[in-house]
Amino acid sequence: MTVIEGQSACQGTSGDAENATKNSQNDEARARINVGWMTTPNDVIENLDTRVVEFSTALGKFQYSFVGYPIGGVVRSFWKYSRNEEPPLINLPDMQLQNHLWETYFSGQVSSWIDCDSKDEHLARLSEEELLKELNYVCYLGLRTIIVELKHVKSPRLASVLNRWVWTKHANFTIWVFVPTSVQTIGGELEDVWSVWADFRSQCANYCSLKLQVGIHITSDLDDEFTDKKFVDRWKAEPVGAMIIDSDAFITDPVTGVATLSQPHAVAIRGIWMNDSIRLLIRDVGSLSKHSNTLKMEYARAARNTVKDVSWIRSKAECSDYPDTNIDYTDILQAPLQPLADNLDSCVYNTFEQDPIKYQKYKEAVELALRDFGESSAHPNSVVVYVLGAGRGPLVSACYEAESAYNEKYRAKKDRLKIKMFVVEKNTNAVVTLRYMNVKAWKERARIVESDMRSLPQKSIELGLDQPDIIVSELLGSFGDNELSPECLDGVTPFLKPTTISIPQKYTSYAAPIMSLNMYQTILSTSPNFWNRGICGHGRDGPELTSRGSFLQRYPQGSDVSNLDQIYVVYLRQFCPLALPKEVFSFEHPNFENVSNDRKALIEFDIDRPADIMGFAGYFDMVLYKDVMLSILPSTYSKGMISWFPAVIPLRDLLRVSNGDKIRFLIERKSDEHGVWYEWCVERQGANGEKEQTPLQNQNGQSYYMRQ
Amino acid sequence: MTVIEGQSACQGTSGDAENATKNSQNDEARARINVGWMTTPNDVIENLDTRVVEFSTALGKFQYSFVGYPIGGVVRSFWKYSRNEEPPLINLPDMQLQNHLWETYFSGQVSSWIDCDSKDEHLARLSEEELLKELNYVCYLGLRTIIVELKHVKSPRLASVLNRWVWTKHANFTIWVFVPTSVQTIGGELEDVWSVWADFRSQCANYCSLKLQVGIHITSDLDDEFTDKKFVDRWKAEPVGAMIIDSDAFITDPVTGVATLSQPHAVAIRGIWMNDSIRLLIRDVGSLSKHSNTLKMEYARAARNTVKDVSWIRSKAECSDYPDTNIDYTDILQAPLQPLADNLDSCVYNTFEQDPIKYQKYKEAVELALRDFGESSAHPNSVVVYVLGAGRGPLVSACYEAESAYNEKYRAKKDRLKIKMFVVEKNTNAVVTLRYMNVKAWKERARIVESDMRSLPQKSIELGLDQPDIIVSELLGSFGDNELSPECLDGVTPFLKPTTISIPQKYTSYAAPIMSLNMYQTILSTSPNFWNRGICGHGRDGPELTSRGSFLQRYPQGSDVSNLDQIYVVYLRQFCPLALPKEVFSFEHPNFENVSNDRKALIEFDIDRPADIMGFAGYFDMVLYKDVMLSILPSTYSKGMISWFPAVIPLRDLLRVSNGDKIRFLIERKSDEHGVWYEWCVERQGANGEKEQTPLQNQNGQSYYMRQ
Repeated sequence: MTVIEGQSACQGTSGDAENATKNSQNDEARARINVGWMTTPNDVIENLDTRVVEFSTALGKFQYSFVGYPIGGVVRSFWKYSRNEEPPLINLPDMQLQNHLWETYFSGQVSSWIDCDSKDEHLARLSEEELLKELNYVCYLGLRTIIVELKHVKSPRLASVLNRWVWTKHANFTIWVFVPTSVQTIGGELEDVWSVWADFRSQCANYCSLKLQVGIHITSDLDDEFTDKKFVDRWKAEPVGAMIIDSDAFITDPVTGVATLSQPHAVAIRGIWMNDSIRLLIRDVGSLSKHSNTLKMEYARAARNTVKDVSWIRSKAECSDYPDTNIDYTDILQAPLQPLADNLDSCVYNTFEQDPIKYQKYKEAVELALRDFGESSAHPNSVVVYVLGAGRGPLVSACYEAESAYNEKYRAKKDRLKIKMFVVEKNTNAVVTLRYMNVKAWKERARIVESDMRSLPQKSIELGLDQPDIIVSELLGSFGDNELSPECLDGVTPFLKPTTISIPQKYTSYAAPIMSLNMYQTILSTSPNFWNRGICGHGRDGPELTSRGSFLQRYPQGSDVSNLDQIYVVYLRQFCPLALPKEVFSFEHPNFENVSNDRKALIEFDIDRPADIMGFAGYFDMVLYKDVMLSILPSTYSKGMISWFPAVIPLRDLLRVSNGDKIRFLIERKSDEHGVWYEWCVERQGANGEKEQTPLQNQNGQSYYMRQ
Repeated sequence: MTVIEGQSACQGTSGDAENATKNSQNDEARARINVGWMTTPNDVIENLDTRVVEFSTALGKFQYSFVGYPIGGVVRSFWKYSRNEEPPLINLPDMQLQNHLWETYFSGQVSSWIDCDSKDEHLARLSEEELLKELNYVCYLGLRTIIVELKHVKSPRLASVLNRWVWTKHANFTIWVFVPTSVQTIGGELEDVWSVWADFRSQCANYCSLKLQVGIHITSDLDDEFTDKKFVDRWKAEPVGAMIIDSDAFITDPVTGVATLSQPHAVAIRGIWMNDSIRLLIRDVGSLSKHSNTLKMEYARAARNTVKDVSWIRSKAECSDYPDTNIDYTDILQAPLQPLADNLDSCVYNTFEQDPIKYQKYKEAVELALRDFGESSAHPNSVVVYVLGAGRGPLVSACYEAESAYNEKYRAKKDRLKIKMFVVEKNTNAVVTLRYMNVKAWKERARIVESDMRSLPQKSIELGLDQPDIIVSELLGSFGDNELSPECLDGVTPFLKPTTISIPQKYTSYAAPIMSLNMYQTILSTSPNFWNRGICGHGRDGPELTSRGSFLQRYPQGSDVSNLDQIYVVYLRQFCPLALPKEVFSFEHPNFENVSNDRKALIEFDIDRPADIMGFAGYFDMVLYKDVMLSILPSTYSKGMISWFPAVIPLRDLLRVSNGDKIRFLIERKSDEHGVWYEWCVERQGANGEKEQTPLQNQNGQSYYMRQ
């Protein structure tokens, strides 16, 4: 394989003073970050279209890892349109390169003169026809990426051609749709460039972002939206596939010959850089003489230098303290657990038990509660503790540790405060483990009660159980109450003393509007395969037996709506939060007054930029006891905790909002005899008064229903 | 990781005389072939259920790679059923092993006394309830396989429990449903054991064979169907996941202590062995004393020895001469190409051009035709050759090679026969390549005509083209005419001389009934994902624009029927042919009489064993010229040819047939203005006269339509 290599050829040129370390760093960046060369009229030599081996090999020597090359060849691409001539035929013979080399090293550029949205109707029609020929030829050559540059603020005819293509063909390539960093470049004035792209992809029915991606064309001019972080951050919610950097965005030191990107350009590029699979392309806009190979190489090096150290793992400030080990979960949809309706598995318990922070905090909270209890005037030597929903018993162990710690600090050897422990669990499988743990780890001090905690008031009479001084539970989901902690704990209330302490005492859910094309697409494209068609959905009704003897879960509203009317758990990365989270629902325990657990909230957010709202990120925090807290809110995140990722509450469609809009998130927590559900929608009020309301989602718990 | 290892501990025991080579062969077989130990009452010691580390480590030392162990523990499993007692609770604590060790090294046995189809209704009901508990506990422990043994010839209640489970739960384990090699073991007499399994999986709606597999329990008795290859071969069409070998199937040399399987048992096991992922389990039926560790180890070794050399790549006799390099394509569905309606890609042409045999045969055929032409009385020095549908030109090159070879052998230097070459191709992309090839490879001797060959009669007048002496084409699909070779060549006929030779001259399609659960399931489970919903199907009607702006391919009959009413191309492996192929349709060229290309065939096959017919394998052969042939029929396969895999023509449902049945495959080739399609169905006539007809498939080309 000789094309685009030339590793050895280039080494002599990097200067004598360069040391080995620097070389090896460059090699590493070169392997990791792909920089390509955009072929322009400046590159044209005779018969270039049958000399691509030579052309690309030379570029390889100048440290380029791929080439942007006209799909139909340079003769065709750089033809000057004239109404009286036919464009040159596609003539870029496949046989000059093996198929896999085309695939790996070439990105196809649509012919320069093609403009489906030209005001010249003849050119527009010709462009539509000839673009289709080029798309077909891309398939023929087997290229994996193509470069399409938007020439207008609105390009409905181009979008229409591509939309039909992507949805109806088995195409194996990704389309990069380029927008420039200055809207004037495409005839705009005050338009927002992000909106130009967002309109275009909407016209392509938001097709899969593995196949339809945005490219950012970094010109020497940068509109404000590419210098203000608030606006730049929106690209993190979009599928950026590539960036073209114009050669005049580089500054070359006249003495040393070293090229760098201007500071604002570098900041913009680094701000958009989400991962190292984004490709960079250098385009010569005339600042290079044909044979300025040193400069060519300098540009490739400078481009790599700009991004090679970008830490595209979200910074601590943004994502709090999720450990990097969770990187595999990023942007993966999970259905929230429903431990009340479903029995958890040993593996799931095992994962949660690994949390280094959660049980430490519980231990602190229990110790504090033991102290308050133990230091009371009666100076008791026994305290009745119930662990409610004990699973495999990590909270039981935490309680015993708290007991030791308290006694160590505050009690004499002969004056210990002893926990009388009751361990309540309804999962019959986990009870096997609890019995084993009682023998192996807890010296048979605990009493295991196999029971739903809501039956305790009844069961305690039958079994003659003590009333609790302290109840400890961990029944919260990513959105706080969504694993039905309120219903479970309320079920125990009749059995409590007026003085019983509940750990946790209180919890609160929060929500913030977010952008994320990726999350929207991921949810839409989640449909069960043939063999999973019968698996119980998350809505009110279960699967039915079919005439073939198999089972089928039906979705009366269609599976798209059903998917979008559910709550998910996601470690979010490709997203952009549009406001700080605000409080949604709060619950306190013990709930002696029997306050209803139904809730209704209307939360207003001010929008400060054009954006597509995909839905809301959900969080919670909880007071375990007094000042001992746990939180997954970004601003107060419990450092090191791994048990919860944020919730995502989607909208049915992306909701376009503008700077100055107000949106109101309306969410209700409803319940009936068998379960609990949320219903939600959004009201948008435009800056000039117009109003709009999105459809009410998950009405009557049809798509997402938490069985109790 | 210490469980089930003991590699070093076992090495000292293999005897002083063993040489290193033999040891390393054993190690290789041990790593590749998993042999497990079935826990029986013989293994029970006190507290075994909390001593599984010890138990399994010991088995590891005796060369066992996993353990079949009761899901609820031995106390529960080996309980003796009594109507007045409750069965012991599940009590196999998870905490004694890490989760991944359970997953890797343990297969769960359903409790011995569980019998959902017992005549004792109390036991039957209890079994249904307790089986569900055990299935739940399998999920809890995270086991990946479980062992269920059929206790009756018919087990509808057990099937009903498992059917609901597999279709409606997110279960992560495979169920092995064991049938014995002697039907008397489960209370049968004349029943066919294969039919017992086939009935059972039908009652589970033929659930996915990754999750529901058959296990063969090799008892000391073998019914005839396990000794006659014709019957045994049917298991190659079923998902065999495991085999239990009873200890009394082994013979131990009283002097050396070496164990081997009896010859018929070994033959049966080897006959069923389709791949090395099948697991073996040894069950002690009382022939082992509790401490006979040497024998335990001998059984594991002997079991591995029996299968370690089985070449489960289909033998040459069965699959002719597909090169092993095609192994990646085995059992993968491909849609037949439609080069007439769709333009092929460079990569596809490139793959076909690699065929080492096809073009060689074409060269021979052309040379023979040149000779017949050149040796005619006129002694011509020029011959007009048309390559029709040239693609990137491999047949053009073959023709030039034939020209050289003929001249070399039969003509003097000054008396050469020269081809006047016309190269016709409608794929505008491939024409770019042909022009390039003409310059680079053919010395500009060929004339490239960009045209559909059916327009040649018209075009020849416009362009003043010579009439052909020889036409050469390669327009055949796996089922012969299914790429519309007849229609294409007929389109050229008006332009031919009465003496024009067509290469090929004739082709014939063939079909044979086949069994294959895997193929049936694979076809059913092929449904497009969200992003492919708009991709053009293979039926008459294309995708439609939706209100969301995306495209959608609708299937008025539902996608299951649509999938089953199509023809596929598959390199078949997990299948069993039920008869030799018989002729279906024939076509000859040139077709000067303009005989219609519509056809109708009724082909009768005699069935010689109980079986489920999944559909028909399709083949073809063709006469290129005189005795130069190409064939993909197993009996006459063109050795080394890689261009075609068999076609598969599915039925809508598996069709159960019996020994002595006759079936008739009715297939029609129909056409209209826009395309061609097949319609098919099967008539079954039972040995005692009853008749049945399957639904007519692909009526009016709704699901599979070849556009012309």
